[in-house]
Amino acid sequence: MTDAEALADRLQSGELRLYELDDHTDPETAATARRLYVQRETGATLDTVGEYSFDADTAEPNIENMIGGAQLPMGVAGPVPIDGSGADGEYFLPLATTEGALLASVNRGLSAIRASGGATARVTDTGMTRAPVFQVPGVAEAETVIEWVDDNTETLREAAESTTSHGELLEIDTYVVGDNVFLRFIYDTKDAMGMNMATIATREASEIVEAETPARLVALSGNLCSDKKPAAINAIEGRGRSVTADVVIDRELVEERLKTTPEAMAEGNTRKNLIGSAKAASLGFNAHAANTVAAAFLATGQDAAQVVEGANAITTMEAREDGLYASLSFASLEVGTVGGGTGLDTQQEALELLCLHGGGNPAGANADGLAEVIAVGALAGELSLVAAFCSRHLSSAHEELGR
Amino acid sequence: MTDAEALADRLQSGELRLYELDDHTDPETAATARRLYVQRETGATLDTVGEYSFDADTAEPNIENMIGGAQLPMGVAGPVPIDGSGADGEYFLPLATTEGALLASVNRGLSAIRASGGATARVTDTGMTRAPVFQVPGVAEAETVIEWVDDNTETLREAAESTTSHGELLEIDTYVVGDNVFLRFIYDTKDAMGMNMATIATREASEIVEAETPARLVALSGNLCSDKKPAAINAIEGRGRSVTADVVIDRELVEERLKTTPEAMAEGNTRKNLIGSAKAASLGFNAHAANTVAAAFLATGQDAAQVVEGANAITTMEAREDGLYASLSFASLEVGTVGGGTGLDTQQEALELLCLHGGGNPAGANADGLAEVIAVGALAGELSLVAAFCSRHLSSAHEELGR
Amino acid sequence: MTDAEALADRLQSGELRLYELDDHTDPETAATARRLYVQRETGATLDTVGEYSFDADTAEPNIENMIGGAQLPMGVAGPVPIDGSGADGEYFLPLATTEGALLASVNRGLSAIRASGGATARVTDTGMTRAPVFQVPGVAEAETVIEWVDDNTETLREAAESTTSHGELLEIDTYVVGDNVFLRFIYDTKDAMGMNMATIATREASEIVEAETPARLVALSGNLCSDKKPAAINAIEGRGRSVTADVVIDRELVEERLKTTPEAMAEGNTRKNLIGSAKAASLGFNAHAANTVAAAFLATGQDAAQVVEGANAITTMEAREDGLYASLSFASLEVGTVGGGTGLDTQQEALELLCLHGGGNPAGANADGLAEVIAVGALAGELSLVAAFCSRHLSSAHEELGR
Amino acid sequence: MTDAEALADRLQSGELRLYELDDHTDPETAATARRLYVQRETGATLDTVGEYSFDADTAEPNIENMIGGAQLPMGVAGPVPIDGSGADGEYFLPLATTEGALLASVNRGLSAIRASGGATARVTDTGMTRAPVFQVPGVAEAETVIEWVDDNTETLREAAESTTSHGELLEIDTYVVGDNVFLRFIYDTKDAMGMNMATIATREASEIVEAETPARLVALSGNLCSDKKPAAINAIEGRGRSVTADVVIDRELVEERLKTTPEAMAEGNTRKNLIGSAKAASLGFNAHAANTVAAAFLATGQDAAQVVEGANAITTMEAREDGLYASLSFASLEVGTVGGGTGLDTQQEALELLCLHGGGNPAGANADGLAEVIAVGALAGELSLVAAFCSRHLSSAHEELGR
Repeated sequence: MTDAEALADRLQSGELRLYELDDHTDPETAATARRLYVQRETGATLDTVGEYSFDADTAEPNIENMIGGAQLPMGVAGPVPIDGSGADGEYFLPLATTEGALLASVNRGLSAIRASGGATARVTDTGMTRAPVFQVPGVAEAETVIEWVDDNTETLREAAESTTSHGELLEIDTYVVGDNVFLRFIYDTKDAMGMNMATIATREASEIVEAETPARLVALSGNLCSDKKPAAINAIEGRGRSVTADVVIDRELVEERLKTTPEAMAEGNTRKNLIGSAKAASLGFNAHAANTVAAAFLATGQDAAQVVEGANAITTMEAREDGLYASLSFASLEVGTVGGGTGLDTQQEALELLCLHGGGNPAGANADGLAEVIAVGALAGELSLVAAFCSRHLSSAHEELGR
Repeated sequence: MTDAEALADRLQSGELRLYELDDHTDPETAATARRLYVQRETGATLDTVGEYSFDADTAEPNIENMIGGAQLPMGVAGPVPIDGSGADGEYFLPLATTEGALLASVNRGLSAIRASGGATARVTDTGMTRAPVFQVPGVAEAETVIEWVDDNTETLREAAESTTSHGELLEIDTYVVGDNVFLRFIYDTKDAMGMNMATIATREASEIVEAETPARLVALSGNLCSDKKPAAINAIEGRGRSVTADVVIDRELVEERLKTTPEAMAEGNTRKNLIGSAKAASLGFNAHAANTVAAAFLATGQDAAQVVEGANAITTMEAREDGLYASLSFASLEVGTVGGGTGLDTQQEALELLCLHGGGNPAGANADGLAEVIAVGALAGELSLVAAFCSRHLSSAHEELGR
Repeated sequence: MTDAEALADRLQSGELRLYELDDHTDPETAATARRLYVQRETGATLDTVGEYSFDADTAEPNIENMIGGAQLPMGVAGPVPIDGSGADGEYFLPLATTEGALLASVNRGLSAIRASGGATARVTDTGMTRAPVFQVPGVAEAETVIEWVDDNTETLREAAESTTSHGELLEIDTYVVGDNVFLRFIYDTKDAMGMNMATIATREASEIVEAETPARLVALSGNLCSDKKPAAINAIEGRGRSVTADVVIDRELVEERLKTTPEAMAEGNTRKNLIGSAKAASLGFNAHAANTVAAAFLATGQDAAQVVEGANAITTMEAREDGLYASLSFASLEVGTVGGGTGLDTQQEALELLCLHGGGNPAGANADGLAEVIAVGALAGELSLVAAFCSRHLSSAHEELGR
Repeated sequence: MTDAEALADRLQSGELRLYELDDHTDPETAATARRLYVQRETGATLDTVGEYSFDADTAEPNIENMIGGAQLPMGVAGPVPIDGSGADGEYFLPLATTEGALLASVNRGLSAIRASGGATARVTDTGMTRAPVFQVPGVAEAETVIEWVDDNTETLREAAESTTSHGELLEIDTYVVGDNVFLRFIYDTKDAMGMNMATIATREASEIVEAETPARLVALSGNLCSDKKPAAINAIEGRGRSVTADVVIDRELVEERLKTTPEAMAEGNTRKNLIGSAKAASLGFNAHAANTVAAAFLATGQDAAQVVEGANAITTMEAREDGLYASLSFASLEVGTVGGGTGLDTQQEALELLCLHGGGNPAGANADGLAEVIAVGALAGELSLVAAFCSRHLSSAHEELGR
């Protein structure tokens, strides 16, 4: 009987609980024992789940109750030249997905962008947020609190920044709803996505607010952050990186490669991505930006739940004399090149493929670059999809006319 | 020189393009060749990306330009008894994530639910949507079109259902914006998530609309579907499954396990999840439901980009005499147990662990069950997180009072 | 001492309360007494407030604690030919406002529409809603309730319609959030705006739901109606009338009258009304539709608070070969030509000016017509404002070029 | 034949247009002539429309094409003691409405507030906004523009403030969407609602932006302002005044006057105003705040179309040991005590009744006070309505139990 089997027996007998295993053995054996136990309990086989190639120790900060690994196919699209602030040069975009046709779509779009000389991308705003909610007796005290915060921002900044070697507090926005005061702390977290950094720093500052004002902390996140929720505050004010990618595709390229016209694409984009989204009361005015975001997040070790905010994106297309101007603006793309899942084997390799793993120079440049590469990839997906439905009509029009 | 190396050379020389490889060799060799090529171009190593254990052939419908696999740690939480329509019994929930503490949080919540006898869950609405946008000359013709659609729903149903052996057209909702007519087709797609099914069926029906009315199809998706966008139409009307999980946690359990009180949790939930989300103009009135959704989606082969709609969820908590009533209602949880990524090795095993792989009996029951299990898991995450910040105060209150 | 003075004395002494006055005298004397009393208490003079010309008796259903009248200037714009379902012919639009330039703006737009042969307008959807919220023990019972409602819609319809001679129940939509069940009753209320009718009918039906199911009525309005709130449910699904007005303005007219081009207006509309509103996370994708709605509502006796829903409107503009296509689609314009404030003197005259006072033939036609006239008026305001900012650039371009 | 008749003849013959009349006669005669003409054209009588008591000259800045006046009944509610920053003391609230029961509802709520010693109110944020949209060649230039704006805020401030004697530029927020740059100028406009002031100041600043950067002004309002549209940006960031009113109603008063309990009201408020609004994807989490806003706006000469933003309000209720805490927080209440419709006779009297007409001391105090009074009035309406539906159940419970 292996160690794992012995431990599985103890799990089954109720002597041990799943989460207690880590105290009794190494991570890999613990995972094996859990797998054995769960297989017995459910009758399932978990063979391929057990065939993970990463080091179980490495994954410890990323998961509890580990039983093994999930494997997703990864592909690449590109290369594409990008003129960005953090990204500058030619890039292959690694994407992990289970959605057929996605890679092909992005690749087709990137090919058109490449033929046009590449895309431009810029991070126009940066800031990871944490917004605690405090309770006060009433609005009179709420006024006191927000005035105190305005007057003592420096004190709060010192407290917040004392907890981090890299992060900087940029701003504290205040909001009052009845006897609730929300303070939205905004940080520059450099190359880290920064949620943990922001949380720890905010906790430190919040304790001072509690000590010095009538405010009582209810929760470190009062949902005005707003993390992993489809909230207008992120779509408007941004969270993580606000990043735009744009390109002008020559008229001839639109016609030859995308089989349609700038005018048709602009019109199609307006009807679907602007008017359709308006009628849907959407925060996402794009075709399928979340597809590329999700696939790039999975490949590069980002937080998959933050695909939610990654869908707050607006696609614009307009016919210009020389061709099609197309842009995609993400309000709240939350990415990092250090921390989180970026240290796992395959994810690290994907970031290295982009030459964007680890801290950038200057600090923040790598995360900026990652945001820009993803924005360009997603823009390619938009071009490809809009061209696809527009060309259908061009071709059917051609057919009808016998051309 | 291996085949892969030879192909990599041809890629590098420009003789072949990345996407053309599949025509020249088998999927695995193609992946190896691409990896070699990309490594040469970028200087990165992609060793662990190449250590995937699934069959490259199997992944063909899921990806193009494949270079290998991404690996994510997978764990389990539970078990938990669920009284659902599709899920009925004890369940371990498989979760793949890179976010530390998530599994522990869900597990802690499930433990409290289990101690309370389990959770109830129900799918209260089902419907996968596809909403093409048509152009008409003006609103006079728009009126003609929607009247025609209302009068000819049976014809459209026949056309739509002719393309699918399982799917059923439930309803067609009509919307007019100027010279745009949107038809929102709603389908019961049984155990499939159903986007492809809905798209194909809608294309067939749309051709009839084009033939019989003044409408010209612009795009099969007019963004009122609304797929992978944070849209109110999904939060209100639902997409995929609308599913609620709820539980009553005994007062004693709240105090002993969660270290707080039903009253404190109800208040904390109101301030953060209801009032905070209201002020954020959010479609998500929950603490971190998307975390569990994302992790369960990744484990079970769902579409990661649909985590976006999976965040349209409302958490309620109220103190009752006997304890805490807590619920989590997802408006638009889009899941399937057949198709998409559910056929990949590790994902299939995760579904088998739930006894929910493949088609259900009756059809749709497995996908219902998956939705219910995820809802219960996410409810556990809500309980755990809200308890965490509420107990902080109880403990600090205790400290202050010297207890 | 007049009667009013004597009553004012009694108010001042505390012997009578403001709202008790109506039991002691006629409405006009009561208003005078209140005015006297309030003047004494505050030192203000209320002379012009007392110079109202309507009959105080008539106003009794519209107000309590009356002290007199507020007077707003009223003007007319037009005439304009309208091809609508309820409105058909030439119309002068009465508008009451205090915002300078509004009438001129609408009038300029109507003049361009008239020169183009008039506008088309259609009510594409109708339905006044009332959505009670019920409490149930949990989601299991919620499922029971919504199934019961689906199975017993006819019973509920009979109950609802028993309370009204005109109204018809069109549909009941069901929504579940935890232990809350919302039933959204949708009525055709013909020429009445219909809130009261819908409320009374829904109360009757709700009592049956309470009697036959585990549901307990919490409130007759559960805010999914949603009345006088800026809610996406209205912007998407409509409330009152969904009405679109559109027009094609000849290219020459755009250039001569509006001093710009169809292309410039289409572009300006996209940047401001579509993209700008998208970034603002708005439910209103228009320039100033609420201005015309508010002014028309005040002139014709509509509920001023429903201007809120009247702002859920999308303006589209596109350059066509022959000129500019422009449309304005209101999702939720809540109007009536009977009941509410439509019986007051000046409001009745304004409706008569439109030949739309009282019940229509067929029932509902007058309210349809009013919705269409307002939509055309607001479309004119959109044309005028967009042209204004676009022509600025044309003219400055001309100046720069020395033309 | 009177002058008016002669002019009406000329209108009818087409010799004169409606808007040209003002050049030929005084405002009152012009109004009479228009009335005559429109009566002839439509067959309507406009007698009471002609019985307006204000001076037609005074109304000139408020309307064009005037034909007379609309009259609405006006009442008062109160008095109520208010502890505010701009409002301090006892207030009668003037309300003009056609909605029966509104005054009674507000009055009942104010009576409960008065019995509890009055309400507290605070303006927690102030800022009238104007957000022009500029076009740039692409995102690279967008970055240039926003950096320039950040570096040259002082220059823009000087330009903006050069156009106004009172207004102060507080901040310029920048937003980028593709090739669109939005600058949201935020002003303290003191006692004026301030839209015109903000527009004029912003025009001046925008010309500098155009001159110094690659930006081309498209429209002075790019809809991120956002004026008279139901936009999340206002609900989150505020526009005009962000103002909260709150009160604690003694438990006994809740039971005696409102016939219910603090617990029932808190629960009812959560189900309807929080959860119901959440499910409706609403920006308004209140029962009927817009009713009081609309009625107060009409009485005091505010812009009726801005009732739209006035509905962005959140009502909270919680049971405390000593009773019910209730609050109402408006995010974007746009009011002024000078300019706009505040100079009309009846509106001016209504403001004088509040001792809030004209400029305050310090500047802005009167508009603050008006915002606070309206907030308290609307809070009263919330209390009254929520109590009404909660007491229904108490009473029916009593009936069932035979008490």
